[in-house]
Amino acid sequence: MEYRIETDTMGPVKVPADKLWGAQTERSRNNFKIGAEASMPIEIIEGFAYLKKAAAYANCDLGVLSVEKRDAIAAVCDEVLSGTLSDQFPLVIWQTGSGTQSNMNVNEVIANRAQVLAGLKIGAEKSVLKANDDVNKSQSSNDTFPTAMHIAAYKIIQQVTIPGIEQLRNTLQEKAEAFKNVVKIGRTHLMDATPLTLGQEFSGYVSQLNHGLKALRNTLHHLTEIALGGTAVGTGLNTPKGYDVLVAKYIAQFTKFPFITAENKFEALAAHDAIVETHGALKQLAVSLNKIANDIRMLASGPRSGIGELLLPENEPGSSIMPGKVNPTQCEALTMVAAQIIGNDVAITFGGAQGHFELNVFKPLMAANFLQSARLIGDACASFNEHCAKGIEPNYDRIKELVDNSLMLVTALNPKIGYYKAAEIAQMAHKNNTTLKETAITLGYLTSEEFDEWVKPENMV
Amino acid sequence: MEYRIETDTMGPVKVPADKLWGAQTERSRNNFKIGAEASMPIEIIEGFAYLKKAAAYANCDLGVLSVEKRDAIAAVCDEVLSGTLSDQFPLVIWQTGSGTQSNMNVNEVIANRAQVLAGLKIGAEKSVLKANDDVNKSQSSNDTFPTAMHIAAYKIIQQVTIPGIEQLRNTLQEKAEAFKNVVKIGRTHLMDATPLTLGQEFSGYVSQLNHGLKALRNTLHHLTEIALGGTAVGTGLNTPKGYDVLVAKYIAQFTKFPFITAENKFEALAAHDAIVETHGALKQLAVSLNKIANDIRMLASGPRSGIGELLLPENEPGSSIMPGKVNPTQCEALTMVAAQIIGNDVAITFGGAQGHFELNVFKPLMAANFLQSARLIGDACASFNEHCAKGIEPNYDRIKELVDNSLMLVTALNPKIGYYKAAEIAQMAHKNNTTLKETAITLGYLTSEEFDEWVKPENMV
Amino acid sequence: MEYRIETDTMGPVKVPADKLWGAQTERSRNNFKIGAEASMPIEIIEGFAYLKKAAAYANCDLGVLSVEKRDAIAAVCDEVLSGTLSDQFPLVIWQTGSGTQSNMNVNEVIANRAQVLAGLKIGAEKSVLKANDDVNKSQSSNDTFPTAMHIAAYKIIQQVTIPGIEQLRNTLQEKAEAFKNVVKIGRTHLMDATPLTLGQEFSGYVSQLNHGLKALRNTLHHLTEIALGGTAVGTGLNTPKGYDVLVAKYIAQFTKFPFITAENKFEALAAHDAIVETHGALKQLAVSLNKIANDIRMLASGPRSGIGELLLPENEPGSSIMPGKVNPTQCEALTMVAAQIIGNDVAITFGGAQGHFELNVFKPLMAANFLQSARLIGDACASFNEHCAKGIEPNYDRIKELVDNSLMLVTALNPKIGYYKAAEIAQMAHKNNTTLKETAITLGYLTSEEFDEWVKPENMV
Amino acid sequence: MEYRIETDTMGPVKVPADKLWGAQTERSRNNFKIGAEASMPIEIIEGFAYLKKAAAYANCDLGVLSVEKRDAIAAVCDEVLSGTLSDQFPLVIWQTGSGTQSNMNVNEVIANRAQVLAGLKIGAEKSVLKANDDVNKSQSSNDTFPTAMHIAAYKIIQQVTIPGIEQLRNTLQEKAEAFKNVVKIGRTHLMDATPLTLGQEFSGYVSQLNHGLKALRNTLHHLTEIALGGTAVGTGLNTPKGYDVLVAKYIAQFTKFPFITAENKFEALAAHDAIVETHGALKQLAVSLNKIANDIRMLASGPRSGIGELLLPENEPGSSIMPGKVNPTQCEALTMVAAQIIGNDVAITFGGAQGHFELNVFKPLMAANFLQSARLIGDACASFNEHCAKGIEPNYDRIKELVDNSLMLVTALNPKIGYYKAAEIAQMAHKNNTTLKETAITLGYLTSEEFDEWVKPENMV
Repeated sequence: MEYRIETDTMGPVKVPADKLWGAQTERSRNNFKIGAEASMPIEIIEGFAYLKKAAAYANCDLGVLSVEKRDAIAAVCDEVLSGTLSDQFPLVIWQTGSGTQSNMNVNEVIANRAQVLAGLKIGAEKSVLKANDDVNKSQSSNDTFPTAMHIAAYKIIQQVTIPGIEQLRNTLQEKAEAFKNVVKIGRTHLMDATPLTLGQEFSGYVSQLNHGLKALRNTLHHLTEIALGGTAVGTGLNTPKGYDVLVAKYIAQFTKFPFITAENKFEALAAHDAIVETHGALKQLAVSLNKIANDIRMLASGPRSGIGELLLPENEPGSSIMPGKVNPTQCEALTMVAAQIIGNDVAITFGGAQGHFELNVFKPLMAANFLQSARLIGDACASFNEHCAKGIEPNYDRIKELVDNSLMLVTALNPKIGYYKAAEIAQMAHKNNTTLKETAITLGYLTSEEFDEWVKPENMV
Repeated sequence: MEYRIETDTMGPVKVPADKLWGAQTERSRNNFKIGAEASMPIEIIEGFAYLKKAAAYANCDLGVLSVEKRDAIAAVCDEVLSGTLSDQFPLVIWQTGSGTQSNMNVNEVIANRAQVLAGLKIGAEKSVLKANDDVNKSQSSNDTFPTAMHIAAYKIIQQVTIPGIEQLRNTLQEKAEAFKNVVKIGRTHLMDATPLTLGQEFSGYVSQLNHGLKALRNTLHHLTEIALGGTAVGTGLNTPKGYDVLVAKYIAQFTKFPFITAENKFEALAAHDAIVETHGALKQLAVSLNKIANDIRMLASGPRSGIGELLLPENEPGSSIMPGKVNPTQCEALTMVAAQIIGNDVAITFGGAQGHFELNVFKPLMAANFLQSARLIGDACASFNEHCAKGIEPNYDRIKELVDNSLMLVTALNPKIGYYKAAEIAQMAHKNNTTLKETAITLGYLTSEEFDEWVKPENMV
Repeated sequence: MEYRIETDTMGPVKVPADKLWGAQTERSRNNFKIGAEASMPIEIIEGFAYLKKAAAYANCDLGVLSVEKRDAIAAVCDEVLSGTLSDQFPLVIWQTGSGTQSNMNVNEVIANRAQVLAGLKIGAEKSVLKANDDVNKSQSSNDTFPTAMHIAAYKIIQQVTIPGIEQLRNTLQEKAEAFKNVVKIGRTHLMDATPLTLGQEFSGYVSQLNHGLKALRNTLHHLTEIALGGTAVGTGLNTPKGYDVLVAKYIAQFTKFPFITAENKFEALAAHDAIVETHGALKQLAVSLNKIANDIRMLASGPRSGIGELLLPENEPGSSIMPGKVNPTQCEALTMVAAQIIGNDVAITFGGAQGHFELNVFKPLMAANFLQSARLIGDACASFNEHCAKGIEPNYDRIKELVDNSLMLVTALNPKIGYYKAAEIAQMAHKNNTTLKETAITLGYLTSEEFDEWVKPENMV
Repeated sequence: MEYRIETDTMGPVKVPADKLWGAQTERSRNNFKIGAEASMPIEIIEGFAYLKKAAAYANCDLGVLSVEKRDAIAAVCDEVLSGTLSDQFPLVIWQTGSGTQSNMNVNEVIANRAQVLAGLKIGAEKSVLKANDDVNKSQSSNDTFPTAMHIAAYKIIQQVTIPGIEQLRNTLQEKAEAFKNVVKIGRTHLMDATPLTLGQEFSGYVSQLNHGLKALRNTLHHLTEIALGGTAVGTGLNTPKGYDVLVAKYIAQFTKFPFITAENKFEALAAHDAIVETHGALKQLAVSLNKIANDIRMLASGPRSGIGELLLPENEPGSSIMPGKVNPTQCEALTMVAAQIIGNDVAITFGGAQGHFELNVFKPLMAANFLQSARLIGDACASFNEHCAKGIEPNYDRIKELVDNSLMLVTALNPKIGYYKAAEIAQMAHKNNTTLKETAITLGYLTSEEFDEWVKPENMV
């Protein structure tokens, strides 16, 4: 492989000639061979691109960066956002806990790429941009990384998580409406209980997701607060006056999301409670989704030896010889995702609880777990919606059979023949494994017509 | 011991003669010998007292319960709320997951106590109230227990958790103001960094708690929704028309909290996402408090071999021979509480994720963990506030010594003598373990007066 | 209330006259009003009683404590172990993280009680024992508390946890044997699959518990290592030569458990990985028990609208009018316990990960969570065993009905009539909701006799 | 893109022409667009390669597969193990919870690649191997996936995890030896305590890792038990007699690890407690490593305003102007890894606890989290060892300064001048911020020579 020499304050380093990164990135690559390469989420790199561009604009407006440099920075940031430079960010999550090295990776790539775009050689004496002095101007790793976290987190929630959940919620809402007259047996403690409609059952799922979405949205304001402008310890040392408000305005403009400067920069560097807070809402949604997916697969169990009240779409061969063995694979994927999010919540909690003094140094861990959860929950809801929820159909015959056979319907006879006779019917039917109707007639307590008139599950829902 | 005979549908049971509970409570006592006795939180029992009274009023208003019975029920509920019957609730958390047996415990105690209050013998033919028919009228365990959970949860958050946190927040706010001019060394990665004021550092803690309180309050609306009126599966079978809204109104009136009937009763029985949601906010606060308490104990470490920037009040003998060994015991209690809440969050998550069909059967587990967390966080904040935060004082000499000796102040010389000379000073001071001032003068780059004029940490914050 | 004055190095304190504790205990009571009173587990106090007695014997043997004092200490320790002094330990978990105040509580109670036993007045000039100089001789809170933790932990595992699990394991083993010929439908993905016997299904549960017990036992050696002799920081300062080995020998003798002195005392004070390790095994068992209890309640679901393959003993009234509604309440208690243990594991993990330098200060938290888990898992297994597992019976008719109706049995026809005809039978039976046998005969592929001869589920297990 | 048509029981599917996979893989790709592509860990694919080869050998030995087919299968498995086919496994973790689709992916690739190796066209009438009938012979997804999990898990623990931890343990052991005479101040509650040696402090870390390694090894036997031979529900339906033992023997032979057939196959499919068990040991090690890395970074804090007792190697530029600001980046990476493992443990716990009946359907989740943890802990220990631990040096001057200044040394004077005079010296030294020696001489209690003779920290360790 061919190399070029890049230099930082510790001296020269060999860097692959075809790569745009510099000495500090290369040191990090060599010093942190932990897990898969390039595991730092690309969404964080994109968050950096937004903020570097915004910083360049703010610096320029405030007179500390030339228009030429601003435009050079912005041009590369736009390339990063377009995805064409995605092989230039080789670092891992498991680096310094401030994410300094990913900040430097972005600085170095922007500076070197600007050099290339200007038709100059990387490392030439004449340089368009300096990684530290220009690209990182008015910034520190300590305020840029949390800003990139918030940009990435807010964006993925709005673009992946919420849309995925809303699609599923909408489908479940449609099902709740469509199934509103399908009377079925209720189950408490997994045991037969009084009836309800399938639509009512699904309405509970809808209500869970609506509450979850509301809880998620409640957390988002905290996430709009960005640290940029705090620099090294939160005081804003070495930033021009008004920079923090202005740079947040540019970030809002470029991302089209309502970011504002954090009122308290000391919190914004030293703690990431906003990440903890929003991920808490993702965890709540994981709890809801686990319940929903678990119910649906149990209701669809069978085809002969389970509950069998629901029919799920058949997406893959279940068993070559076993018709009707439609495995609830989308439920399984969704509940695995729920388990992952519940685990990620603990990792984030652990990292969030351990900041020291002016800096929390679990930033990449927190970011990576957050972004994985937000992506997975959105994708898994969309997948579950498309490949399972939309196609759910009631097994009407089975639902009717179960409700008709249920012993719980006897409660409808209480006002007609009294509690004791009703109980006697139920006891005998249970003992003899017969229907309530047969038993009631056998006992002579009522006629077939009376039974049909009095015992109407649809009146019990 | 003396016994009396109580009977339920399974037959007679011997109950201690001096106890008011009945057959079902006694069966549960015998069948669930798991952990300490009477572990079901008293706050849940009180929640039941509110809801039983409210149900009696609503039933009476709607014509299904006499005024005499209503008043008999209400009188005992008031006794329960006054605490005089607290030895009548012997059941454990680890019973049926719907809490049915605690609902029956309350029903039985109310019925038997009403009998006693009326001057009648328990078990006499003439009975003032029937546990099932009167006390439990228009109710089911399945909707009462979650209602009791929400009443208990909302109440403790308002009465214990929030006041405790607010006290601490207020004290930290006062300290942030009081220390606003105390310039100190900043620390990132635990390493010396540029200065900030002690007030700024404390303002970060205040901001964390303010955000946490806001997050907590955001969750409370979900908790005001109560399940009562849903009865067995959420359909409201066997409740009079208008009952759910009316009973919620009475609960709001009796508790003075803004409870409303849950829009969707199916969710309210089958899932407890509101508990998950609010506990998520408690967990976020635990994360914040862990950070704050950890910082404070590290800043107070010493007296000679640590950081020593803070002086904590001395509440207990530290070491009999070691003056100044003031152990940060309140920090330790608070961080242990934080760890407990973080663990409880997982227990609640696990329980919340596993509801089946129309009923979540992890209710007592979820309630017990929630109430423990809410109590502990409130109490621990109040204790920490009273016995630690209020008495925190800066060790001014130590703070000044550290900031004066810091090498980071050299950055203030950059604009005066240039980056390279400034770095040379820092390098030499580090190597020779001397101060910047000594070194700068030795190197002849500036005078003592110039140093004092140019290097002012208070200008860097 | 009457008081007496107790004094420590910080001065005088008023203590309730009828209590044996002294100044430091009283200070802690006042300074840590967090959660319920006296929450420090009694097992820890008992652990202290064992170690104080052992220390007295070792100190006496090594010539630093008189025989009289040794016997005075031992006499009170024996009282503590007999439970007669249990109202003398009022402190909470949420105190100093080293448990110092509970160590002092024990020291003070021993000294004052010895005074009383000797017929002297508490606080009299002539004292039998001094709390610090005699009772705490050759000890520090830092090595006593972890020793008490290990004694308590090892003891409860041996006396409560393992016996409870073994009882359940034995019953499940008996059931596996008893049900070994009960052929039933298998279920994968909750969907019908090829048959197995009910005994085979239960044998899986037995295997899980056997592996779990083995895993638990594997961890116990670490728990036998005790910190005593390490004193304040692990060096053993102020202990007579040979003390650590000797005191461990006495603890082993008094407890009848194989305790040994920890090879490395620095670990033993600064980390509690042994607690983390053994609790990890409890968590594994919780995982197994959750699976088992969950399976059992699903297999027993019904009586009409569920799976209904198992019949559980009826311990409480389920529904007054609904025969056969036997709620799986023991399963619910057991799965709630599992959830609690899973949460406790995170609390312990969090505490265990955060020791600082020579001392972990999450000791009471770790101890309390461990002891709760160990108690709950043992009690819940015993309860589940007694009130559920022992009484489990197959619903033979239902099991036979399901296996006979299953479409999966068609695989037995492959070698006889070929794959395609077999599949055709299954497809048609599924479509027409008929049995395989009916369909096969209708299609003319075989006779009733051939079907009965060829399709024997018992040959497929 | 060019496509070819592949067909399964549900009909034809278009597959990219340059890929070896078949219809079922392609369906899964389309149906599970959740998270990053190809996220199923490659170690699982390799585990499949071992077991498919072993199954082919066992099937051949037992007369149900020809030698030609065996060799055709084995040849492709060897290619998979060599890594040349790694772009043929595009599926994600978030698929069916049994991992069926990854099993089919492997079956399809083996069959199609064998076709190519034989010079035949994929899809040609003449086929070397059939994915289901030959490659999957005597197997089911339900027993292959857990077998692949155990192979992958055992292998990575032996090849990555244990070696990484052992390297670090060995280095810490060397440091403990090298630093055995470096007397330093001890710290409890973060406060100054009696001295110990730096070697003693490090020996505690070594002891933690030794106990952790032992705990980890204790779990491995469970992991050597493999499910293969259980087929669909654990009964071993459709396997030749002796197959399970033989196939395990081949897996042991090919992997060189001591795999054996699981005694109870029902557990082996329905539960993954072995994964839970071993990951529990990884979590314990994460707890230990968090403590160790946290201590080291606090001991190295400074250079001026922290503790500063350790010097860490400088791997990256810390601050361009701040000499001595060596950020503890390896500690940060290691503690982030610890947090991840602690989170993963909860995800695994959650998945492990939720198996249903004959099959746990959280297999890919459990595998992926396990393998990530095992890889990260091994890599992070190796990285920390190489780039941090090996280069740790004591800051002798600072260590001596702190111990000399410590007030705790006064305890050495007790036997010489009595407790009260010693305490008076300490009190005055603390108040006046002077050394013990100065104060003792000032007070006239001893001479400079006496002080030096009597107060020797090295005698206190």
